[in-house]
Amino acid sequence: MNTQVGALQPALELIPARSGVAARVKRGQSVRVVNTHGKQVVDTWAFSAADIDEHLSMEHSRAAILKLMPAVGDTLVSNRRNPMLTVVEDTTPGIHDMLIAACDEHRYRQLGAHGHHDSCTDNLKAALAELGIAVPLTPSPLNLFMNVPVRADGSLAFEAPVSEPGQHIALRAEMDLIIVFSACPQDMVPVNAMHPTDAHYQIA
Amino acid sequence: MNTQVGALQPALELIPARSGVAARVKRGQSVRVVNTHGKQVVDTWAFSAADIDEHLSMEHSRAAILKLMPAVGDTLVSNRRNPMLTVVEDTTPGIHDMLIAACDEHRYRQLGAHGHHDSCTDNLKAALAELGIAVPLTPSPLNLFMNVPVRADGSLAFEAPVSEPGQHIALRAEMDLIIVFSACPQDMVPVNAMHPTDAHYQIA
Repeated sequence: MNTQVGALQPALELIPARSGVAARVKRGQSVRVVNTHGKQVVDTWAFSAADIDEHLSMEHSRAAILKLMPAVGDTLVSNRRNPMLTVVEDTTPGIHDMLIAACDEHRYRQLGAHGHHDSCTDNLKAALAELGIAVPLTPSPLNLFMNVPVRADGSLAFEAPVSEPGQHIALRAEMDLIIVFSACPQDMVPVNAMHPTDAHYQIA
Repeated sequence: MNTQVGALQPALELIPARSGVAARVKRGQSVRVVNTHGKQVVDTWAFSAADIDEHLSMEHSRAAILKLMPAVGDTLVSNRRNPMLTVVEDTTPGIHDMLIAACDEHRYRQLGAHGHHDSCTDNLKAALAELGIAVPLTPSPLNLFMNVPVRADGSLAFEAPVSEPGQHIALRAEMDLIIVFSACPQDMVPVNAMHPTDAHYQIA
């Protein structure tokens, strides 16, 4: 038994249910995002560590990969079309979303929520604030594990994730990044199978 | 013959080839965008006249209409999920794009352009500057007439528009807006059938 290897393994970090976390990632490191309970969407953003105005962009990434959904080998790019994150492993069925905006107070109000409801947009702000950072916008997120099927007629639906507990995706940083995760608090449409949970990540 | 009606008809305004224009639109007015020569993409943005930070958002609109492409009766929304533009008429085959970022200097450099190349991103800035307005970002545009087919496997392609000369789409403003059009200068991939041209619009 090689206890040293065990001791050196990077920690599995918590993304608390309904909350956000931000972390710094060096170019060349990989970020593994684990769907601990299997049915949790994790909204994901990335910002250049050198310039917060450069961020992961779904609309530029779709033009770069010419796909609606990233798969192993695909490199997602920034709003300046620079490589940011490459999918290096995916043990899920590969269903993720690049189409849908982060949930926000307006979304929950329209769905009929009364008073405060946690949201991925607020989680992004709060997570970045922990690092002393503010951004003036909410880029369209990479919604890991989110299941938004596109039908032949171009119509979309919100469905429960198809991933299973412990399945994960790993993304390699192509520049020094600040990465932000939000365990989506959506409990009014079935994107988290109506039951938001924790998820985890690991930077190695 | 009712010459008075003719005299009162609103002017058809030019969107010069490779350039952008901005105009103010009152709530309830309709904006007709004419594909004068048939194969020209018109990148389109809208901003609230009351608060420039509120803008037409493709990622929020997809969540609202649950479609990849807007059709007559669909209302596109802002980044605060407020109604901004409703499609009221479309004489084209209905092929428009909500997926792809505006072209920019980075795109043309990656395609192999040397030196300056006009871009929709620069056209947005220049058109707003004519009204004394600056925005810190380039929202993902509504690319009128742009033909980006989505195949069954989720892959995308850049193809020539399928609209014909003189066909148009009309959008009703659901709030007081600043609308911006760019006659896309892309001549390195076939989104404008390799030949950027003028287009026109009319506010009534």
